This record gives sequence, structure tokens and C-alpha cells, in this order.
Amino acid sequence: MPKIDLTKIPLKTGSGYPGKLAATMDGRAQQAVGDAGGITQFGANIVTLAPGALSSLRHWHEQQDEILVVLQGKLTLVDDTGDTQLRPGDVAAFPAGDSNGHHLINRSDAEAKFFVVGTRTETETGWYSDHDMKVTADQSGFHFTRRDGSPLPGSEP
Amino acid sequence: MPKIDLTKIPLKTGSGYPGKLAATMDGRAQQAVGDAGGITQFGANIVTLAPGALSSLRHWHEQQDEILVVLQGKLTLVDDTGDTQLRPGDVAAFPAGDSNGHHLINRSDAEAKFFVVGTRTETETGWYSDHDMKVTADQSGFHFTRRDGSPLPGSEP
Repeated sequence: MPKIDLTKIPLKTGSGYPGKLAATMDGRAQQAVGDAGGITQFGANIVTLAPGALSSLRHWHEQQDEILVVLQGKLTLVDDTGDTQLRPGDVAAFPAGDSNGHHLINRSDAEAKFFVVGTRTETETGWYSDHDMKVTADQSGFHFTRRDGSPLPGSEP
Repeated sequence: MPKIDLTKIPLKTGSGYPGKLAATMDGRAQQAVGDAGGITQFGANIVTLAPGALSSLRHWHEQQDEILVVLQGKLTLVDDTGDTQLRPGDVAAFPAGDSNGHHLINRSDAEAKFFVVGTRTETETGWYSDHDMKVTADQSGFHFTRRDGSPLPGSEP
């Protein structure tokens, strides 16, 4: 059955960010709708943001295209150019290799949702715009380091 | 600017289907939001269906994953299992190689919209469930033939 039963897809909360940064993702819940539907070539998720929540830390991808469409509520897209308001039906695209780091913030007092798709690649590097941090991804998982590749100290961001 | 200005993206109507089949796509308009946003690794479109319109002829892809989310209105997903009603926020996924052909029909009396993403591959073959037709795609474009590869006669489906 191609239709995804959203009531059966777990809401994934929490974050893989190291140390105190993990808590910055409080209020975010993700549903892996692509995985649930047997899609493997790209990731597709429905992300729900409580008031005040962030989609991620502001970042950009070296190799992976990303696109999203707002499904519900009001969201603020933050990138190098400042703030842009998004409403249901609005689309934002983030081409691979474009170093204009981005994330969404729910600055409203109501829950907001968006649908987001990103390419899957065997390896990837993502760069964080507002932190001395990058992430490298490979088959063993996600590895967060400083921008120069040195370890992040303990639980400190 | 990552936000796509939907008012500036042309509404593409018509169809590449051969002969009389082209008219079966009347009432469908597509906006290439991924292209507009500089995305190249997958296709992302907003598709608007007038009352009575179809998303495509019922089909499946050999190599390309496809996923969609409904943005507005009421749509009927038709696949080998029958009809499934979709509402805004509903997601349907169509893994590459799954021969369960699908399409959407707007059986309501109001316009409906969905956001759809499909992988891009250098070549592809798609099979039509309700017609003696397949499509092969390569760098030279889309080529519609009978299932056995023989030419489709003139403008007759």
C-alpha cells in the first residue's frame, strides 16, 4: 500500500549533536516517511516543530541536495541573508555545495510541520554556520568535529 | 534565496504522451520547484490537478524512487489494490522496481495540489499499467513504445 499510515511511524526526538548542543533540538520530532514507504535513494521526513523549536543547527551540505515544503503553521527560514517567513505550501531549496547555511525556527505559538527530502550519498560532509563544527558521515555513522577536524572537547559545544 | 517564489515559476501544462493519450493530461499543471531552486539530484514538482484531472497515466518506475505529499484538496490514489483517499498531509511512496502502478485522480469539485519528488537517473524505463505502453528515457528524451518495444501506431494510443 503506497499510502503511509502516519499514525504508525514513530516520532523520533532527540539529536545526535554532541554535548550541550543536543538539547538545542528539544521540541523537534521527525517521522521517516521515506523509510516507511521503502524509499532508499533519498531521505524523506515529516518534521514537527513545537513553538520555539529548530529544524537543525544552521548548516549546509557538500554533496546532498535538500528541499522542503511547509505543511502546517508558520516557520522562519534563517540563512546568510536573514529571515524569511514561510507558510503552508511554501518551498525552499538548498542545492549541494551552496555554503549558504540554513535552518528553520518555529517562532509562532503553534505547532508547525514540514516535509523535507535530501539525497542519500555514501559519504557526506556538513558544515555548521554558527558553530566551530562540521559533521562527516559514512557507513559507520555521523562524526562531529571542529572545523579543522580536531575533536570537540567533551560535552562542550 | 532558498525560498522559491512560486508566482514566478511557469505552470507547465500538456503532456509528452503520444497521440490521443496527450489529452488525458488536460487539467494538470506542474511547477518545477526543484529546478527553480537549483536542485539537480532529484526532480521536485508541485502538481495542481483541476477537478477530474490525472497526475499521469497509471505507471511504475524501474529505477527511480518517488514520493509525494498532498498539499491541498482531496485526491484519490489508484493502484493495483484499488482506490485510497488522500488528504492534505498524507504521504504516498512508490519504491523503484515495485510494479504496483499508481496515479492520482482528482475526483473532487475543487482544485488539489501535491508535492512530488523522484530520483533522477541517466536512463529509466517506466511501465504503464493500463496501456500497452512503456517509456524509456535517456539523454535524448522520452521514447514511448509498446511494451515489446515496437512503435506505437501514429496518434493511436
